[in-house]
Formats: sequence, structure tokens, C-alpha cells
Amino acid sequence: MTYIARLHQAMKTQKTAALVGLDPRYENLPEEIKEAAKDRGGDRLEMYAYAFERFCCEVIDVVTDLVPAVKPQAAFFEELGPEGCLALARVMRYARKKGLLVICDAKRGDIGTTAQAYASAYLAGEDAKAAPWAADALTINPYLGTDTLQPFVDLAVKREAGLYVLVRTSNPGAATFQDRTQDGVKLFEAVADAVEALNVQTMEAGETYGSIGAVVGATYPEELAQLRKRMPHTPLLIPGFGSQGGTADDVKSAFDADGFGALINNSRGINFAYEKEPYKSQFGQSNWQAAVEAATKDMIKSLAGVCPL
Amino acid sequence: MTYIARLHQAMKTQKTAALVGLDPRYENLPEEIKEAAKDRGGDRLEMYAYAFERFCCEVIDVVTDLVPAVKPQAAFFEELGPEGCLALARVMRYARKKGLLVICDAKRGDIGTTAQAYASAYLAGEDAKAAPWAADALTINPYLGTDTLQPFVDLAVKREAGLYVLVRTSNPGAATFQDRTQDGVKLFEAVADAVEALNVQTMEAGETYGSIGAVVGATYPEELAQLRKRMPHTPLLIPGFGSQGGTADDVKSAFDADGFGALINNSRGINFAYEKEPYKSQFGQSNWQAAVEAATKDMIKSLAGVCPL
Repeated sequence: MTYIARLHQAMKTQKTAALVGLDPRYENLPEEIKEAAKDRGGDRLEMYAYAFERFCCEVIDVVTDLVPAVKPQAAFFEELGPEGCLALARVMRYARKKGLLVICDAKRGDIGTTAQAYASAYLAGEDAKAAPWAADALTINPYLGTDTLQPFVDLAVKREAGLYVLVRTSNPGAATFQDRTQDGVKLFEAVADAVEALNVQTMEAGETYGSIGAVVGATYPEELAQLRKRMPHTPLLIPGFGSQGGTADDVKSAFDADGFGALINNSRGINFAYEKEPYKSQFGQSNWQAAVEAATKDMIKSLAGVCPL
Repeated sequence: MTYIARLHQAMKTQKTAALVGLDPRYENLPEEIKEAAKDRGGDRLEMYAYAFERFCCEVIDVVTDLVPAVKPQAAFFEELGPEGCLALARVMRYARKKGLLVICDAKRGDIGTTAQAYASAYLAGEDAKAAPWAADALTINPYLGTDTLQPFVDLAVKREAGLYVLVRTSNPGAATFQDRTQDGVKLFEAVADAVEALNVQTMEAGETYGSIGAVVGATYPEELAQLRKRMPHTPLLIPGFGSQGGTADDVKSAFDADGFGALINNSRGINFAYEKEPYKSQFGQSNWQAAVEAATKDMIKSLAGVCPL
């Protein structure tokens, strides 16, 4: 089954477009996780990698019956070296085993056969054994040009995996290069057009959306509405909800009448809900998993007002 | 000592701007390496990772007295999963131990603390223990905006490491987005201006070049000459020499009167020299290391005509 078909099935089952990011940061981990890691021993990177794996798997246990997918951030694992890379692979396999789709946020990009190598490392599709990091979908960077996206698209089609190309990012300085304008078309709009074109080429007959998606930040709601129209067949991955300031109202334009069209990501706001009110007083550190659950359910509730899934 | 000071020292010692890329591809490896990997056993990815490590270390043995630095391509190692990531870390440590500078070609890029995590994974500077992948310098992608380059720059300054920001890539479709023009300035020129500005901010008094560099493909010689003028203090990393068609004449504009200003990379043309003439007849597969040596020396000789080091 194609990535988009699997994603839609999961969204229908869970009745939400909420995507839980997995952004482990050691300083934010609950004490019980850190203690367990210390007890286990080993050098600092091994301890951290164990803590990251355990924390993410526990988050997965909590959210597996609530959301369609999780999005691990590769950078935090990579910071720990090869041990961290192994932990990421395990977390991804665990999420799949629990029935979640996995979008690996690695923002890779390179030319020709090098792009092929990255694609082959991450794009597993339905068969977890098809890639060392068994992602259903991968985020990629378009700067090098459309020809460098093609190897990713080719393997995504072959393995029935998905891609999310960076179009409009959620950081304050996103405009520096992405807003540069030629003939009235901004760079991120030109990238959007290229992604929509790549996506349409790969779509199956009868589908409304393809498996080649776009990353569009929730921090620029007007642009999101325009981009939704500009890429009518492209599924969106929308970061910036929660900690970065995006609200349900900011993302409502991303959904069609059936509630499809986008996944809305929240990472820190869910992972470390126990550190912030109202969850901090209600659950605290000793019951951090309940805080993850409450924050996820609150996000789902808030999205339900704008997404008719 | 800063990255650029270490690099210039190494360039003076070896009297060349030649950079040897490490691009292991299993199908191109000499039979003796593949046989040794098979004898060692393990699953496919373990075997390949062992073969990549052994091949790269042997290439390092050959080039360590000839060139200032090597550039491993992260993607080929990553394709093998966590085992490959471990092999990459080992190859990088081995190259340093042999006295070579290491530029890790990973083209990373992300926002805020995520960018920090990538920087921390790769930017070791002089102390090999400072990062799991002990690079002297790292390639990064500017699409997300100048604010997302800053965390890399901050850590590079702190650890006396270097960066090479993608400005103009060497692929046929590089122009798709990089040539888009606003007010007469192309995107890659705007990125070049941003890199030069970031670089100048970090430069030490009395230095001609800083440690924040730019990737500029050799496949567009006229643009290279313009970019050299546009970024007078920015060291360049120039891919595209050899297999991709770039010649010594194409890159001569990158050097100043002392021969500084750029490193010229050749990966496949050196790694797999034994597969192509004139090296194939002269050395063949059984003496592939001699082919690596001859191809490296030929590149150095060819660059000597345009680079007065």
C-alpha cells in the first residue's frame, strides 16, 4: 500500500492529524529515566543513548492508540554518535511494531548516487527490513535542485514510502532565502511548485493526494493557506505547533473537507509536557507519562475543532 | 589553532590544494577488500561496513603523505545503518591519527537546538574526543536561513573547527533554485554574501581567510571566478574535479597568489582509479593502492600548474 494510503488509513482510525515528534534532550528527561540510564552504566554517550531509547519507547507506548504517526528527530540521536544512531533505529522499529507510521526528520539532501544512498538508508516503506532506519517517510532538503530530489522520489515510489520536502520552515529567519522573489514568485513557492509536480507524477489513479509531501511551518498561517492552494495534491507536514507558537486556528487552512491534507507536529510540548503547566501541577515528574497522554489528548481535542476527521 | 590555520599549515607542508574524497561504494571495491569482508562474515551490512572501513583506511595510508585532508561522504556509510556510522567514525579517527585533516561531507541543516545537535555530533576541531565523528570541518545546507547557520558557526568558533556552506553545487540541476534572481542577485550569490558575512565575523586579526567556507562546484568555472571575488575571505571547497568533468584550468581562479583559497576535491577518480585508464592497464585491480597513489600524484601535478603553493 502506498505511504499516503497507509497514512490516511491511520488518520481515519485515530481520527486525528496530530503527529507526535520524538525530540529527546537529556537535560529534559524525567529523573527516573536518567537514573535507569546511570544504573545501566557505560560511558556518557552509551548512557544517553539508552535513556533516549527508553524515553522514546515509553512515549510511543502512550501515544500509539492516540495518533497515526511519530516523527523522531535524527539530530538528537546523531549527537550521541553511532550509539545514538542505533538507538534511533531501535526506536523506529519499536514504533512500527506498535502500529505507528514513522516519519524520520533527517532533512537529508545531496546529489545523484549520494542522494540514492541517503534514500536507501531511510526509506523502508511497508517492509521494516528494507532499510536500516525503517521510516515510512523522510524529510529532505531541496537547495541542491530538483534533479537531486529525483533519486529520493524514485526510491520512495519503488518502496511505497513517503517524502516531505522542506518548502517553508518554521524558524524566525526562514525568510532570509526562502522569501527571495523572482518574477513575483518566492523561492519557497517555486520549491512548492516543483514538489507538487514531482508528487503528481507519482500519484495513483483516483487518489487526491500523493506520497511526496511538503514541510510548511505553522508559524506563517497566511502562507500556509496559500501553499495549501498552490499544492492541492501534496500532503503537508506542519511543524511549529505548540512550543513554537502555532495554534489549531493557524493550521485549519491545511485540511480539506474530509480532514485530510496535513499532519500537525508537536514535539517538545508533548515529550516534556510534565515540565509545563497545566501538566506540571497535575502530574509532575513522577507521572510524566500521564502528562504526555494528557498533552496529546489536548492537542487532538484542539485539532478536532478545525480538522473534520 | 583555528581550522583555517591548521589547513594552511597542512597545505604548505604538502604543497597542494588537492583533497581526496572517500566515497566507498561496494560494487566498485577491489576484489581483495570484498574477499576479506566475506571471510570476516556477519550480515550484509556488517560485511559492507568492514569493507568500507578497510578500503578507506588503505586509501588514507596511501594519501597521508601527499595531501592535506580527506573528505568522507557520510551518505555512503549511513546507507549501511548504525554499523556504517561506526565505520565512518573509525575512518575519521584513523585519518586524524595519520595526520590528515578531515572534512565530513554530511550537508546537515536544521533549526535552533536541532542545528546545535548536528554541530555537536561532527565539529571536533583539534580535540578528536570533542565529537563522536571527529571532523575538522563539516558541510552544511543554507536553505533554512542564516539563523540556522549560526548554531553551527558558534560551535565551530568554540571548537576551532571549520564549516563549508553549500553555495553553488556541482550537479546538472543546480540552477533550478540556486539561479533564481531577485534585484539582479542570484540565490547562490545571496547565500555567498551571507557566508562571507558570517565568516568575516569569526576571523582572527591578521588572517586573510576565516574558517567558515563555501562549497562551489568546479562544473561552473565562470561562476567560480565571480564567487571567488564575491567572498574574498571565504575558503572554498570545490567538488566536481575529475569524474564530474572539472579540470585544473576550471579551478585556477579559486587560488590567490600564495596558492591559498580553495581545496579541490576528487573522490571517485582517485578511490577507484584502478577501474579506469591509464591506471587500469598500468596497475589493475591487484595493485589498486598504486593506482590511488598515481591518480593522486597526477591530480597534484595538474593542480601545481594553476596553484602556486
